[in-house]
Amino acid sequence: MSIITIERKILEKNDAVAEFNRKNFKEKKIFAINLLSSPGSGKTSILEKIIELLKDKVNIGVIEGDIQTKIDAERIEKYGIPVAQIITNGACHLDAILIRDAFSTLSDKQISLLFIENVGNLVCPATFDLGENIKIVIVSTTEGDDKPLKYPAAFQKANAMIINKVDLIPYLNSSIEILKNNALKINPNLKIFETSCTKNIGIDKLCEWLLDNINKL
Amino acid sequence: MSIITIERKILEKNDAVAEFNRKNFKEKKIFAINLLSSPGSGKTSILEKIIELLKDKVNIGVIEGDIQTKIDAERIEKYGIPVAQIITNGACHLDAILIRDAFSTLSDKQISLLFIENVGNLVCPATFDLGENIKIVIVSTTEGDDKPLKYPAAFQKANAMIINKVDLIPYLNSSIEILKNNALKINPNLKIFETSCTKNIGIDKLCEWLLDNINKL
Repeated sequence: MSIITIERKILEKNDAVAEFNRKNFKEKKIFAINLLSSPGSGKTSILEKIIELLKDKVNIGVIEGDIQTKIDAERIEKYGIPVAQIITNGACHLDAILIRDAFSTLSDKQISLLFIENVGNLVCPATFDLGENIKIVIVSTTEGDDKPLKYPAAFQKANAMIINKVDLIPYLNSSIEILKNNALKINPNLKIFETSCTKNIGIDKLCEWLLDNINKL
Repeated sequence: MSIITIERKILEKNDAVAEFNRKNFKEKKIFAINLLSSPGSGKTSILEKIIELLKDKVNIGVIEGDIQTKIDAERIEKYGIPVAQIITNGACHLDAILIRDAFSTLSDKQISLLFIENVGNLVCPATFDLGENIKIVIVSTTEGDDKPLKYPAAFQKANAMIINKVDLIPYLNSSIEILKNNALKINPNLKIFETSCTKNIGIDKLCEWLLDNINKL
């Protein structure tokens, strides 16, 4: 019982700071996106492709969340984009307090589109509101087509799903149609994109949708 | 501070039950293996391949851990193997208490090799001792070659690593050599296997090693 109490306290504290972040982003006219996925689904690769297409059209900023290493932040920094790296030292998710603190290091930058790349974990990050405008869940074709049923929370809470690595489908016992149907069973409102970073597929449509969302702010 | 206290209590309780499980397995001459990986790395597919090769040589039992669904237990049941399904209802890892309770449902079965398929999560399950003899971490080639550096705990605690989906290497910007080197930086004692379930690669070597381990009991 004490575990539940403590967890509730953590979430209450988190939600209060998430509200602070949300107001802060709104005041600064920033559209914030929380990217969720398993390790190795291609979050950073998709970010790189989005940055290539959009960096001359919109001011992008990135907060990278990792358990260890600053590999991802170094990949993003090469594009001349403002980036803050959070190293959680073992913790399995980002929370709103970490985002508040990381964002404060970017407060002098002109940002209108902020990506928050969460820790690679399809379970725990789904529980924590960071103050973002939308959540996007990324699932790679190589993970199989049953993941939305087995890890429903991330798919329930997401506004959009990116099916990445679609170029590998010919070599897999996995179906994009079954994956889509399973995701829509969990969340009928999910907007779905299909991408491949190595073959440059679908990033343009994803970017159009992102620009539409920013323009609606 | 209170969070740490509670976590310590949870881990102390867990470790006491893990010791109970370990003694229980030892008395019954059961070799228990805790399988850790990200979602979709191929834990269940590797289990199916091992069962095909070993089921006439050794009495296998399986405990399946999933957040939702009994898809994995149903896959294993087709082989006529005793299986218990744990559905965690959102919880991100298995613990020793869940294993004690799940194993009690298998106590009338002849088992000498017990596989525990943990929840798909490369982070949280690494912290919880289940009373197993060894931990095996599975990483798929499609997850990239930097995962041991970014998620070190699972690789530090594992006795062996299986690099799965090696048949997809020609289509990836990912190197098995770099992946191995990164894993050995984290844990120089890691025994490493390379497998593909779709192309039936490396399962024989893995099974030989498992039999060696059981025979040493």
